Amino acid sequence: MNYKVVFHLDQDDEGSALVMGLTNITNMLAAVSGEDAEIHMVANGDAIKLFKQDLAQNQVETIKTLHKQGVRFCLCNNSMKKFGFKKEQMLEQCEIVPAGIVELCRLQHEGCAYIKP
Amino acid sequence: MNYKVVFHLDQDDEGSALVMGLTNITNMLAAVSGEDAEIHMVANGDAIKLFKQDLAQNQVETIKTLHKQGVRFCLCNNSMKKFGFKKEQMLEQCEIVPAGIVELCRLQHEGCAYIKP
Amino acid sequence: MNYKVVFHLDQDDEGSALVMGLTNITNMLAAVSGEDAEIHMVANGDAIKLFKQDLAQNQVETIKTLHKQGVRFCLCNNSMKKFGFKKEQMLEQCEIVPAGIVELCRLQHEGCAYIKP
Repeated sequence: MNYKVVFHLDQDDEGSALVMGLTNITNMLAAVSGEDAEIHMVANGDAIKLFKQDLAQNQVETIKTLHKQGVRFCLCNNSMKKFGFKKEQMLEQCEIVPAGIVELCRLQHEGCAYIKP
Repeated sequence: MNYKVVFHLDQDDEGSALVMGLTNITNMLAAVSGEDAEIHMVANGDAIKLFKQDLAQNQVETIKTLHKQGVRFCLCNNSMKKFGFKKEQMLEQCEIVPAGIVELCRLQHEGCAYIKP
Repeated sequence: MNYKVVFHLDQDDEGSALVMGLTNITNMLAAVSGEDAEIHMVANGDAIKLFKQDLAQNQVETIKTLHKQGVRFCLCNNSMKKFGFKKEQMLEQCEIVPAGIVELCRLQHEGCAYIKP
């Protein structure tokens, strides 16, 4: 079985959904090791603020570790423009996608399960 | 590609999920113009309170604009009965569906992606 | 039509998402009586605290009733270990699954719609 999944974040709730999402992904990779996993996290709206370079160091480390294992972290460019953020201000592990919502639809239509932590 | 998607609202959080959802849909229609889009918003529970006729005028205008572009706005009749609301009290762009949850299942089974703003 | 659906809970919000989810499932079973329904509720993170034996009696009764109608209630074992909970402390209608996130993916890949109350 192929574990394809997209995690969706859209709030800046002091990072609790982010911590939950990162824990979810870590648990998932532990549970399905040896099997194929395709894991995406898409942030739009206020949630993109969580991925600035001043994120708490332990969360940055987790993101680096997961990114090395193939997890994609996507930030919505509509939200980037809304807040006036530049790519250089964000964690380098993040990829900018034109519209987070379109990415969420596209991934689900390609067979990803959806999880909102 | 066909962008089929359902947005789900179930809380009366002073409208922040509604604003997020309407922004999501507006961004989506901007991003996929010229392609087929089939967009639904389903509200149940406390979220149906947001669709009363006293909604803030700028949000009413957005709903009117999106509705003209084919977006469906569905309110759960179980929740309508729970709160004693009549169809006449709600925005005329809204359609009443027998059970919001069944509509959410039906749409996903017909190929809609699910997004919870 | 076959109503396959998974409800996801991951917060301990004084039970409001649980109440919403139980109401959703009750409404669903009322709406689709006579048709096949396959309904799961998966709790991970703080939400598993809601399924301890000291849950309010009216909610316990609802869970018992739904469980008799075939609804599955699944608790994430990663979260059980995190909080040091034992199976005996939880409602007996609950099943422990190794990883809630993997269960959510598996069910969606088997055709379940996803709903986050």
